[in-house]
Amino acid sequence: MEYINGGVCAAKGFKASGIHCGIRKNRTKRDLALIVSDKKASAAAIYTLNLVKGAPIYVTKANIADGKAQAVICNSGNANTCNANGIEIAEKMCELTADAVSIDKNDVIVASTGVIGQPLDITPIAEGMNELVSNLGYDNSGNAAEAIMTTDTILKEFAVSFNIGGKECRMGGIAKGSGMIHPNMATMLVFITTDAAISPEMLHKALYADAQKSFNMISIDGDTSTNDMVAVMANGMAENAEIVAEGEDFDIFCNALAMITEKLCKAIAKDGEGATKLVECFVDGGKDWQTAKTVAKSVICSSLFKAAMFGADANWGRVLCAIGYSGADVDVTKIDVSFTSAKGTVVVCENGAGVEFSEEIAKEILLEDEIKVNINLNDGDTSAVARGCDLTYDYVKINGDYRT
Amino acid sequence: MEYINGGVCAAKGFKASGIHCGIRKNRTKRDLALIVSDKKASAAAIYTLNLVKGAPIYVTKANIADGKAQAVICNSGNANTCNANGIEIAEKMCELTADAVSIDKNDVIVASTGVIGQPLDITPIAEGMNELVSNLGYDNSGNAAEAIMTTDTILKEFAVSFNIGGKECRMGGIAKGSGMIHPNMATMLVFITTDAAISPEMLHKALYADAQKSFNMISIDGDTSTNDMVAVMANGMAENAEIVAEGEDFDIFCNALAMITEKLCKAIAKDGEGATKLVECFVDGGKDWQTAKTVAKSVICSSLFKAAMFGADANWGRVLCAIGYSGADVDVTKIDVSFTSAKGTVVVCENGAGVEFSEEIAKEILLEDEIKVNINLNDGDTSAVARGCDLTYDYVKINGDYRT
Repeated sequence: MEYINGGVCAAKGFKASGIHCGIRKNRTKRDLALIVSDKKASAAAIYTLNLVKGAPIYVTKANIADGKAQAVICNSGNANTCNANGIEIAEKMCELTADAVSIDKNDVIVASTGVIGQPLDITPIAEGMNELVSNLGYDNSGNAAEAIMTTDTILKEFAVSFNIGGKECRMGGIAKGSGMIHPNMATMLVFITTDAAISPEMLHKALYADAQKSFNMISIDGDTSTNDMVAVMANGMAENAEIVAEGEDFDIFCNALAMITEKLCKAIAKDGEGATKLVECFVDGGKDWQTAKTVAKSVICSSLFKAAMFGADANWGRVLCAIGYSGADVDVTKIDVSFTSAKGTVVVCENGAGVEFSEEIAKEILLEDEIKVNINLNDGDTSAVARGCDLTYDYVKINGDYRT
Repeated sequence: MEYINGGVCAAKGFKASGIHCGIRKNRTKRDLALIVSDKKASAAAIYTLNLVKGAPIYVTKANIADGKAQAVICNSGNANTCNANGIEIAEKMCELTADAVSIDKNDVIVASTGVIGQPLDITPIAEGMNELVSNLGYDNSGNAAEAIMTTDTILKEFAVSFNIGGKECRMGGIAKGSGMIHPNMATMLVFITTDAAISPEMLHKALYADAQKSFNMISIDGDTSTNDMVAVMANGMAENAEIVAEGEDFDIFCNALAMITEKLCKAIAKDGEGATKLVECFVDGGKDWQTAKTVAKSVICSSLFKAAMFGADANWGRVLCAIGYSGADVDVTKIDVSFTSAKGTVVVCENGAGVEFSEEIAKEILLEDEIKVNINLNDGDTSAVARGCDLTYDYVKINGDYRT
């Protein structure tokens, strides 16, 4: 199993496209993405648990209720959420897409990201559809990845190749992250394509299980978006025997999926709004998954800890504080804490109390742009990893005046 | 019932003091506070729910287990938390205080605030005790209020006078707020004194009930501190008939307490770390307290909403988003949202969807330093208020390098 190029076009039979149609005023930024499979594909998706859901969430849910899809249409610049006519507009996006690429409108996954609460004008989408379709290409993942970005600064696409029953399969994904990211059950916008053959049921099972340890363990700012969605299409063109049950093939498929989602998660966390660094919280020695997960997420979500990471300050008291209020049942007097980066590791706390350490070495370690905070609860053998970023001036700047 | 001057010295028989003893390097900042009652008083306190608790929490709990106290000793600059010898030091602080003012060491409430995880040296406290005691005065609340401040920029003290059964009573409080503030059950450091006569049981009952609607509804940054404490001493010197049960006198006492705690809460929220404004979230039309409270706290805690308030941006989509992920069971299509300040009110959302409004007027309203976001759930008649502040560059700056 290895990483390859190609993003959502790495797998056989997937074309992608991305253009500027005019939803965003900035003409240099693509704002409309399309992914089309040559064949109708198994489809699965998971969604935000926010009670306030974007209109596209409802429409996509209905469209893939039969476990099938053939295209993804996604705009940035407007979330199509909290509008009087959101559902109508989302359905219209599906219709326009279906007509343009000659598929069934019920086989379209639709998503939107951007400002909440402003009507989404269908006109630029309708007028841009011809250009969007002519731009489709089997090597055009990058344009689609760019078109779904909002305040993201880095384009996010990854792909892997793997082998199932002697057949080479491929899988790739693109993601949009940045702000309002604290997934719960589902996540930001992620589209994954694969040519492996797998039933809709097993595809959903793989995706749901993966998300608990990947997307649901990221937090940029503690805000669960209204429009989070991770959607996967598997068109079977690799011609492996269709995966319809657990077993070796399913495990390989899940491993491939995990390779993609881990890369996307790290990329999303590192490119969080205003972030200067990726911060990963590794919890070991948990008595169970719930405990390890709760501790990891509480630390990664703490504003005070995140601000300390921005300042490269080994303020481990804030780590213990965040563990303490997490609600996890832990024995504080057993906890060890250290920080790791490319520059090395510094142990800062043992058995719940501070140990002497060199502030200079700690500073040198924390000035790196990828930091791990390692927590050992010394109470079992379960681990969890949560990912996030630091809290910076730029986060405040970006979000203090996002709409104007 | 009316506001008066005097802070914790407003009530009869309470002396206070605050000095710089040397825990903090900055010689211009007082770091040790003392409050002493002429008579042994009924005492009650509530504490942080953080599993990681400062050593003073344990010692205070033990000391007031009998419902009695006569003094408060509190230092700033070091939280005396996550240390090997924290309990010993906290007990020593009680002993030194008791010896110096000739009371029982088990009648001392001890509290600490500051950096977590560094040993607290008893030497400056021991050496400063004489000066601290000579500084005691019946009009010296301000010195004590200053000595408990950390990154607070505004001294917080309030007092009221009220009448129980023909006797004039007084009550006053001081508070330390600023960062790591997201109380849960208990809160930041608050010391309240009163000369009303009330049993320890009824005092605890009044305090606990009040905190649910006052201190537990504040959030500066979502971080529940390890050292939160609200302690009240009631010395009975107003000579009213002791309050030993619910009834008219108890209601008057609770009203007086609410007058003090509301003022302290607003002051703490407005003076949150880096804050430029007080933000209050008024939720009406809730079907029950849990729902109204959950919605109000979720909005006040949202980093995205708080950054929008800093930018005076009427980004109500973030309000709906935070309601949606709060976990409260609400009907999104019934929700109305408006913003209010001294400059007026602007309605931005009705029935869960945006309404047209003037961005200029909204900006003018949101540029004020006290903002109310009004949410009507239109689903019942329960209300809740949560208080917080905006998220600013200075919050990041203060917390990016707090220890150095």
